[in-house]
Amino acid sequence: MSEFLSLVPPAKARELYLKKIIEVLELSTETMPTVDSIGRVAAKDITAPHPLPAFTRATVDGYAVRAEDTYGASESLPAYFKVVGEVKMGQPATINLLPMQAALIYTGGMLPADANAVVMIEHTQKISADEIEIYKSVSAWENTILEGEEIQSGECVVTQGQSIRAVEMGGLLALGITQVEVYRKPRVGILSSGDEVVSPYQAILPGQVRDVNSYTLSALVKACGGDPLPFGIIADDENKLREALHHLSSQCDMILITAGSSVSARDYTARVIQEQGSPGVLVHGLNTRPGKPTILALCGKIPIIGLPGNPLSAYVIATHLVKPVIFTLQGMRKFPFPNLRTARVTLNLSSQAGREDWIPAKLISTDEGWLAEPIFGKSNMILALARADGLICIPEDNTGISAHEIVTVELLDN
Amino acid sequence: MSEFLSLVPPAKARELYLKKIIEVLELSTETMPTVDSIGRVAAKDITAPHPLPAFTRATVDGYAVRAEDTYGASESLPAYFKVVGEVKMGQPATINLLPMQAALIYTGGMLPADANAVVMIEHTQKISADEIEIYKSVSAWENTILEGEEIQSGECVVTQGQSIRAVEMGGLLALGITQVEVYRKPRVGILSSGDEVVSPYQAILPGQVRDVNSYTLSALVKACGGDPLPFGIIADDENKLREALHHLSSQCDMILITAGSSVSARDYTARVIQEQGSPGVLVHGLNTRPGKPTILALCGKIPIIGLPGNPLSAYVIATHLVKPVIFTLQGMRKFPFPNLRTARVTLNLSSQAGREDWIPAKLISTDEGWLAEPIFGKSNMILALARADGLICIPEDNTGISAHEIVTVELLDN
Repeated sequence: MSEFLSLVPPAKARELYLKKIIEVLELSTETMPTVDSIGRVAAKDITAPHPLPAFTRATVDGYAVRAEDTYGASESLPAYFKVVGEVKMGQPATINLLPMQAALIYTGGMLPADANAVVMIEHTQKISADEIEIYKSVSAWENTILEGEEIQSGECVVTQGQSIRAVEMGGLLALGITQVEVYRKPRVGILSSGDEVVSPYQAILPGQVRDVNSYTLSALVKACGGDPLPFGIIADDENKLREALHHLSSQCDMILITAGSSVSARDYTARVIQEQGSPGVLVHGLNTRPGKPTILALCGKIPIIGLPGNPLSAYVIATHLVKPVIFTLQGMRKFPFPNLRTARVTLNLSSQAGREDWIPAKLISTDEGWLAEPIFGKSNMILALARADGLICIPEDNTGISAHEIVTVELLDN
Repeated sequence: MSEFLSLVPPAKARELYLKKIIEVLELSTETMPTVDSIGRVAAKDITAPHPLPAFTRATVDGYAVRAEDTYGASESLPAYFKVVGEVKMGQPATINLLPMQAALIYTGGMLPADANAVVMIEHTQKISADEIEIYKSVSAWENTILEGEEIQSGECVVTQGQSIRAVEMGGLLALGITQVEVYRKPRVGILSSGDEVVSPYQAILPGQVRDVNSYTLSALVKACGGDPLPFGIIADDENKLREALHHLSSQCDMILITAGSSVSARDYTARVIQEQGSPGVLVHGLNTRPGKPTILALCGKIPIIGLPGNPLSAYVIATHLVKPVIFTLQGMRKFPFPNLRTARVTLNLSSQAGREDWIPAKLISTDEGWLAEPIFGKSNMILALARADGLICIPEDNTGISAHEIVTVELLDN
């Protein structure tokens, strides 16, 4: 609770924090149109109500036949078939095939009951109005997709805890599943504090800075599936923070505070968070740069994260600690893959042993692969991030990286 | 124009197509709130209206001093300073410092006029109400960020053609830039055709399939910054296609058609597209699987892409050919980095020489890195994509990939 922090390695802090959150996690669900569900997480296993395809279909244009009638057919010794009809797209195939009979069929068309293969049109020749030569034999079910080959009735399309991407949405719609039960989006309260902080819509006076965190954090929350509730700016005042937290606790599933910069603000922020419920503050201080003064708390069921006040630190920490919490709060079983690039760093980078460093970097494409050019700057420089493609991590067990060494760059959200 | 396609390598087709589109490109712009501009593209260079920081600030908590007064200070021989005040956060620093005077200051506070450095609080000791010892000398401007160090007045914050991410939005707001001029979102008409295609909200009869493409393509268009205008489903009918294209041409900046599957539909689709304006059809047939029957056309200023009717092929081709067109139509200078993973493939994969293949694959994490497990299936299986994390590319100059070889997996959109 004092200014002297006992620093925890970020990976350990994250693991501990998510574990504690999962212990008290209570997810609620809602039903919504499948077409709007991209990015949402399925609240239960969704199974196929019927097989897909719903009927055996041709996968090429050609002639539906009984495969055994084509055996032995070749360029030099074609087989002769009588064409007894055409399968219309979108209609049931009502044609019955007798031996050595064929029906014209198009890609996606329904296979007639007595047919078990399709000869590609390229391997046939029309010789009269109702007769064709076939130059190539087909085996049973060749050039078809069988009823249920994509999915059988009752098989799982999307499992509980799985994120719905465009392709899952498509799969659900293909099966006529137009409503899905998903977990509710976590509501994330966002509080900017600081006597020096004013709205970006306001002119600044000497000593003042504009609020950036409310907006960058709202964007980050939205990008990872949360519903941001920006509370606005409060002055560095213990009672105002208490009131704001009290108000947000009744409305939110998670709260982010960007802390005031005064020493007193830092003293009372952790204390006021602690009052909101047990277990309270779990971590106060991360062995990372930027982001050392971060607070991770769990008050009742509500994760509360105290972020550094300066926009670069707040955003970098949010990328690594807020995102996984929001993923967890929406019931996601498997987190999305971060966008990474392997690159050679252009300069020597030093770091303290035991501390994890994140350094903004620009990626430069060369014939020998990517170069990562670090962008140096003080940690309050949001524009250092705006000039960067991503972040280089110097892991905690490393005291630095030499120029030309290979690093992983984690790309920033688009 | 006939069924016999002259197949173009996809990379060459894409290059040719984007070049032709850029030749006739006319971008229009709109002004919008900066806070809503994430994902949009700046229509002009945006410069800083004032320096940032707007005043020289402390980057630590401590005492603002004249650096020269601290020279020689050490643990064994501290320097004594008189504390003449405290810089309040958010207020102009009105304190004047005389030699050997200090002012209490917090991170982000405005440096008093006569100060040129900050001594960290950890390197000081209070010895009376208004006197401190300083144990460590500071050099000029140590522990400060100078006025304009982040950006100077008139310098570029965001350049024309640059995408606005959360961090650019933050940088703009830090400078009080609350409105931005961006390129208008391209309106992308989406047309599903096929006698067999019905709405996902409808029960299917034998021979029918539900429309998936309207929805997966709308999602893809939205994800890359376009504004989808789904037109709905039309039957395989030359006149209906003509009417629909005519209607969409007056409303859209780009049109996607998922083609009907009948041979006649394939015959007339390219012809009807060709009628919409010159240069017309530029590519008909790509040497790729899936996606061979793709049509790339430019009619007047409107790119029209004919996609294969089956959902997997349409989505894979859209990922590689529709996305870059939408990026181009919104004036983007540099396309976003695709999300890639390097992995070892678990099975032998074969491909035709000269043909580029895209194979859905699941990524499996192991101690030795990622494995890519191909998901085989017929090309109309949207659920093969739903089971995949991404796509493995077998380049056109390759006839296959052996098990355990390293491949790049391009992750699907979330």
